[in-house]
Amino acid sequence: MKRLHNFCAGPCTLPVTVLEQLADDIVDFKGSGMSLIEMSHRAQIYDEIHHGTVNSLRRLYGAPDDVDILLLQGGASLQFAMAPMNVLGESDKAGYVLSGTWGKKAYEDAQLCGTVYPAWTGAEEGYSRMPDPSEIIVEDDTRYLHVTSNETIGGIRMADFHDHGVRQVADMSSDYLSRPIPWDLFDVVYGGAQKNLGPAGLAVVFVRRSVLDNDLSHLPSYLRYDLHSEADSLANTPPVFAIWATGLMLDWMEEKGGVEGMQGRASRRSSMIYDAIESSDGFYRSPVRADDRSHMNIVFTLADAELEADFFAEADALGLANLKGHRSVGGARASVYNALPTESVRVLVDFMAAFASAKG
Amino acid sequence: MKRLHNFCAGPCTLPVTVLEQLADDIVDFKGSGMSLIEMSHRAQIYDEIHHGTVNSLRRLYGAPDDVDILLLQGGASLQFAMAPMNVLGESDKAGYVLSGTWGKKAYEDAQLCGTVYPAWTGAEEGYSRMPDPSEIIVEDDTRYLHVTSNETIGGIRMADFHDHGVRQVADMSSDYLSRPIPWDLFDVVYGGAQKNLGPAGLAVVFVRRSVLDNDLSHLPSYLRYDLHSEADSLANTPPVFAIWATGLMLDWMEEKGGVEGMQGRASRRSSMIYDAIESSDGFYRSPVRADDRSHMNIVFTLADAELEADFFAEADALGLANLKGHRSVGGARASVYNALPTESVRVLVDFMAAFASAKG
Repeated sequence: MKRLHNFCAGPCTLPVTVLEQLADDIVDFKGSGMSLIEMSHRAQIYDEIHHGTVNSLRRLYGAPDDVDILLLQGGASLQFAMAPMNVLGESDKAGYVLSGTWGKKAYEDAQLCGTVYPAWTGAEEGYSRMPDPSEIIVEDDTRYLHVTSNETIGGIRMADFHDHGVRQVADMSSDYLSRPIPWDLFDVVYGGAQKNLGPAGLAVVFVRRSVLDNDLSHLPSYLRYDLHSEADSLANTPPVFAIWATGLMLDWMEEKGGVEGMQGRASRRSSMIYDAIESSDGFYRSPVRADDRSHMNIVFTLADAELEADFFAEADALGLANLKGHRSVGGARASVYNALPTESVRVLVDFMAAFASAKG
Repeated sequence: MKRLHNFCAGPCTLPVTVLEQLADDIVDFKGSGMSLIEMSHRAQIYDEIHHGTVNSLRRLYGAPDDVDILLLQGGASLQFAMAPMNVLGESDKAGYVLSGTWGKKAYEDAQLCGTVYPAWTGAEEGYSRMPDPSEIIVEDDTRYLHVTSNETIGGIRMADFHDHGVRQVADMSSDYLSRPIPWDLFDVVYGGAQKNLGPAGLAVVFVRRSVLDNDLSHLPSYLRYDLHSEADSLANTPPVFAIWATGLMLDWMEEKGGVEGMQGRASRRSSMIYDAIESSDGFYRSPVRADDRSHMNIVFTLADAELEADFFAEADALGLANLKGHRSVGGARASVYNALPTESVRVLVDFMAAFASAKG
């Protein structure tokens, strides 16, 4: 089998050992006489997988005891609504950092769920950078500040998390569990699993237990954090396969040094690509301010845009897949999520240098 | 490998050929160099799987062109809220048939999303039967009537669908695609995939296109049927694995005669178990009125409840798994979803007869 080098922005590549384990066990789960995906979600075998995944998430991310972990469906998209619905009281308001496509989507949904305001927007600058901490304006009596830690389309990230005087709610989908986070700053941290943690179909939500004390009885049951928490995310049938596969991926991450290990990988691998850009004498360009460059989604353009078609065709021929930038911005984008082998990055940067040298 | 006879009430057993196909392709999808679950949901290979599943659903269920098909997350549980949110206008009201645990849950969530009233309730009779058509009271100016076609816990089903003068919204999770339905009666038909169609993590929603003309701009994006429809259920990352596996299961159903084939299987197999109950001289008992007996979840008790522990232990020893009734009602329950082999039912009824004869 020839594996492609998969720089897809999501769903993510997975360790081949995880895929092989899924293949081995999907017909007959460890001699049980059935597949895990055929079992009752109340069965003991599934229960161990379910709680194993939750426990791994807590251990790897260092989430404190007063933060609960929910395994939900509907992706980060549903959390754009659920977070304000569950956290904002009727007389509360929240500030939103509009740092890109995803921060903007979160804000637009939140406008329908409560009183919110933009605490900063990068729209005028084409979402090409993150705000400096001093640019974020938090109004008095703000319940939370919403941030997007990494914007996949713009290829920008918040290099550090700062205290803005109120607890934060954060969409971390695209750099989930790829760096330690200061838990004291956050009331809710959410994200889809399909970039850094596992396959699509699972959203992981960390929520401070004090939020669960809110009176949420006006919300339909699936939209209530407190009911999911009380039921250990088993109030309805959970996405069994995605939870199982994510658990295996977390085991793999633990073997590779956990979140700190992932942070080191991400730093090294993104540096390899940014170095390839910087050392190309302007053949490749990064549109992103150096301090804000994502360690997950490396966005770049070719100075001569007419060479792009050749670039992608030659990359494809080498098995370098999914390098096209998002259709809304064009150019190239290499996503180097947790599971991507470093070897794939080496093949990419060697190709970038060779291509620049041949065409430059 | 020894397969158990899996009478689980959900998630469901799957055809072993489907599980084997998943195992074969999960590491490297048909020589593509990556797993399907690692691909972009915008990639052509995934696109074919996605639309193939939608097309199979339409073909097998005979859904007319003015009914759209959405592939969502959050199970039927999230539809308890989304259906009223999307269908009910501000001045509308809806009637709910409270036929069991699931009808009641749908009603409770709908109360938080609009004006609703009970059109019938089986609560006083312990949810042991469905209403006769004449018992359902539809008030004037009702926008829709909500029904649950099959109640998994009570083991009752609506044997026929009747015209009550308004379009219906139906939770069909537990007898999905197991019998043809009269589409003219319904505006929305929804259900989780994990009983009759595939693994957990996918909800399939059939929605009449006229519903999508409602002004839904007050709803957050994930909760809007119209946005999912416009984006072909690709507005956010879909649950790729569950859609893939469901597509394979639908192919298998088509080989077995489609929905009519499933209807015949369900009728024969449920009859085998009801016959075993009726011919046991009162050793086994069905608590359900004959006309309303589910073809999917066959609920029964032992006249001598003290024999139950032995019954389950001996069944387990024969590989007859998951026969315990729901914890809220006790007794026994055999769920015979679409993919259960008829051979499993034969082993069960032989065991039931032998056990009754030995202990009776």
